[in-house]
Amino acid sequence: MFDFPVEQNGVTQEKLLTLIKNTIKFSVKTGHRYFVNQLFSGLDPYGLAGQWLTDALNASVYTYEVAPIFTLMESAVITEMCRMIGPEWNDGIFCPGGSMANGIAIHLARFNYNKSIKKTGMFQHSRLMLFTSEEAHYSTQKFASFIGIGEDNVILIETDEVGRMLPNRLEEGIQEQLDFGGVPILVVATLGTTVRGAFDPLNEIAEICVKYRLWLHVDAAWGGGIIFSQRHRSKLNGIERANSAVINPHKLLAVPQQCSILLVKDKNILHACHSKGAEYLFQKDKYYDQSYDPGDKYLQCGRKCDVFKFWLMWKAKGSSGFAKHVDALMDAAEYFEEQVLARPEFRLVSKRQYINVCFWYLPRYLRGKKDVLEHSIQLHKVAAQIKGAMVKHGAIMLGYQPLKQFPNFFRFVAQNSALGRKDVDFILDHIADLGRAIYK
Amino acid sequence: MFDFPVEQNGVTQEKLLTLIKNTIKFSVKTGHRYFVNQLFSGLDPYGLAGQWLTDALNASVYTYEVAPIFTLMESAVITEMCRMIGPEWNDGIFCPGGSMANGIAIHLARFNYNKSIKKTGMFQHSRLMLFTSEEAHYSTQKFASFIGIGEDNVILIETDEVGRMLPNRLEEGIQEQLDFGGVPILVVATLGTTVRGAFDPLNEIAEICVKYRLWLHVDAAWGGGIIFSQRHRSKLNGIERANSAVINPHKLLAVPQQCSILLVKDKNILHACHSKGAEYLFQKDKYYDQSYDPGDKYLQCGRKCDVFKFWLMWKAKGSSGFAKHVDALMDAAEYFEEQVLARPEFRLVSKRQYINVCFWYLPRYLRGKKDVLEHSIQLHKVAAQIKGAMVKHGAIMLGYQPLKQFPNFFRFVAQNSALGRKDVDFILDHIADLGRAIYK
Ligand SMILES: Cc1ncc(COP(=O)(O)O)c(C=O)c1O
Ligand SMILES: Cc1ncc(COP(=O)(O)O)c(C=O)c1O
Repeated sequence: MFDFPVEQNGVTQEKLLTLIKNTIKFSVKTGHRYFVNQLFSGLDPYGLAGQWLTDALNASVYTYEVAPIFTLMESAVITEMCRMIGPEWNDGIFCPGGSMANGIAIHLARFNYNKSIKKTGMFQHSRLMLFTSEEAHYSTQKFASFIGIGEDNVILIETDEVGRMLPNRLEEGIQEQLDFGGVPILVVATLGTTVRGAFDPLNEIAEICVKYRLWLHVDAAWGGGIIFSQRHRSKLNGIERANSAVINPHKLLAVPQQCSILLVKDKNILHACHSKGAEYLFQKDKYYDQSYDPGDKYLQCGRKCDVFKFWLMWKAKGSSGFAKHVDALMDAAEYFEEQVLARPEFRLVSKRQYINVCFWYLPRYLRGKKDVLEHSIQLHKVAAQIKGAMVKHGAIMLGYQPLKQFPNFFRFVAQNSALGRKDVDFILDHIADLGRAIYK
Repeated sequence: MFDFPVEQNGVTQEKLLTLIKNTIKFSVKTGHRYFVNQLFSGLDPYGLAGQWLTDALNASVYTYEVAPIFTLMESAVITEMCRMIGPEWNDGIFCPGGSMANGIAIHLARFNYNKSIKKTGMFQHSRLMLFTSEEAHYSTQKFASFIGIGEDNVILIETDEVGRMLPNRLEEGIQEQLDFGGVPILVVATLGTTVRGAFDPLNEIAEICVKYRLWLHVDAAWGGGIIFSQRHRSKLNGIERANSAVINPHKLLAVPQQCSILLVKDKNILHACHSKGAEYLFQKDKYYDQSYDPGDKYLQCGRKCDVFKFWLMWKAKGSSGFAKHVDALMDAAEYFEEQVLARPEFRLVSKRQYINVCFWYLPRYLRGKKDVLEHSIQLHKVAAQIKGAMVKHGAIMLGYQPLKQFPNFFRFVAQNSALGRKDVDFILDHIADLGRAIYK
């Protein structure tokens, strides 16, 4: 069907064109407004133009020397985003994804706790402990393993009925680990959890971090884009009290993949924690001021330029353009939730906090039942079956997953501000049609 | 000069166009054949087309579901590259750079040594030790810090007169650490060192790794592309004896930034080491065979598609196209070395092994001196001064650095097969002209 193998000789131009066409044909149209499967969607024309120019210039952003515009642009964007968080914020880096950014935040927290680990490693140390919620993104655990702390030393704190970390449980968890001889160093709070879009209560968590002298990292990979919306910005209140935060413009703000920014308060820590001073890149006798070279703040060496597409969108639409985008998405989500509540064939999993709307489709025999969770076993199969039919049909891509006590449910997440009320109706009608056909 | 700040409102289309033009104007033309500053250069038209299409499709390669073509294509390319290394090679992942790939190789080595660290961390463990050469890329040290092993536990083994790791010194180093109670787990050998392009003696190193049961990782980020050249492939002999290897097609093969592949022998280790099983992406009741989902083999979650541009180039030019490219670069380097040897104003730092040609420009009073190193202090300043003039002039970008006992020298690295003998002459003439003007 698709000719993947590569050969000794190149193919003809004609053949190549067919391959390119097929690549397009068989690829998922992530720019389509009915692609609501992941936490990214849409394709901004400025973003794409920016990405294309970046590619044509094929820059690698380690030194001012080889990427003069892009290093300065990174610094301008980081400065502006720091300012939006709070006056004490000072530095940041672009990362190949929010996962990596969360991993680097763990690294910073560990460096902050003990600088000598950079040189001597963690051998013979007491157990360092991290805390995050049971609904937080899995990257904290993956990177806890990578960094040598181990996933068992990430304590997952219970969440409330809508998915927010319970601060009293956090404090209990910390106390418990202290009693066992563990050394808590970091709390990762989430603003906009992956599945339910919950916002952890930052101010209460920040108090606890102060009390126990812990690094507070905010995973706002998904929720952080809201910083552009005057109407919804207050959901991020307290973010300024953290030590670091990640925001993924490639999620909510529809910047093309990939654009992820880790911001920090401490002006010097990124450099102190990551620098190595390789002389073939960071010569000590440069013909310009070395402080323009961001490279040694990074773990990466060669690095794609991810700033230009974001900057170009920002420049083209202004902060107000992003605000409008966010507000439109929030409106669509609000309407989606209303419709789910209004229609008997759907049931909300929990109250919406953000763009995410989590819901079940109910086969007829479950409608009107007060507690559908009593029928979890049957309900669990529904989403997977409908998804199968949905993919065959091909109009919509929408994800599902189980969570805690909840059997499989659908998660709607709009990131495409072209998606309006009619589209919401279409999506829900479509699911209802598929459901009706399966559960006659 | 350049209007970086972003504002509340978007700028006009006209203004935007000016900004885009200025971005191009003030950016380094990395595609130019006189950009020989870094280990990447050139801009392949197929590569660029591939990158552009990837951007337009804006894919994130975690699941078969959202990236059906690209997940299968990754697997086809990885299978083919494994086959080129040896029949026992089985798996691989794309990485955001060779540095990260080296970091993941450390992770695999540690997992191979002790699987429980993934869960419980490295606390209370004996000191794990890594070995690489003193001319190896700095990423092994950076990631040794990150991963919790510490940069002091990376032992840098002495190199010979052309930059190759000395195997007897390696064995001594291992013995010494064993005597001190360290636990050696990994040797990182380099095929194509960053500065001098040296190839470590793999077969001898592999013997030592077998004897001491160490993971052997080959950093062929720079040298690995040579695998396409029948004429030069033998420089990689022994690579099949390693446990893992990284090859950066974005370096020697001129694939657009960024394309970096970590290959491994063990079929299961990437998944075993990295998997977390997040249910919102990797549902257990998918409507297709889960083994098509590469995502859980990765540390990253969202991930740019880096395969398509490489695959498209490969498909368009065939393996023979890459072979021609590599052979042309080697020819250019050979001619460059000949010219350096032939001209009295230049002096070779050490015999060329690969594309890298390392040389000094000699002011008149140093020419003909047998041992220029006796004048290191003066010589050290020359490259930086010429570089300053070179940048002002703007025709050529060429890097310099010190290394071991050698004062600052220039490093020529061609990766653009459009660069011919005339260009080599031009580059050397230009440096000689600048030198003559400075050191009258
Ligand atoms: C030998 C070697 N290994 C690894 C790297 C790192 O690769 P990247 O820049 O893709 O992180 C380099 C970069 O120049 C290199 O020369
Ligand atoms: C809350 C949260 N944090 C982090 C990430 C990881 O971001 P990335 O996919 O860029 O690695 C995600 C991804 O969905 C997320 O939802």
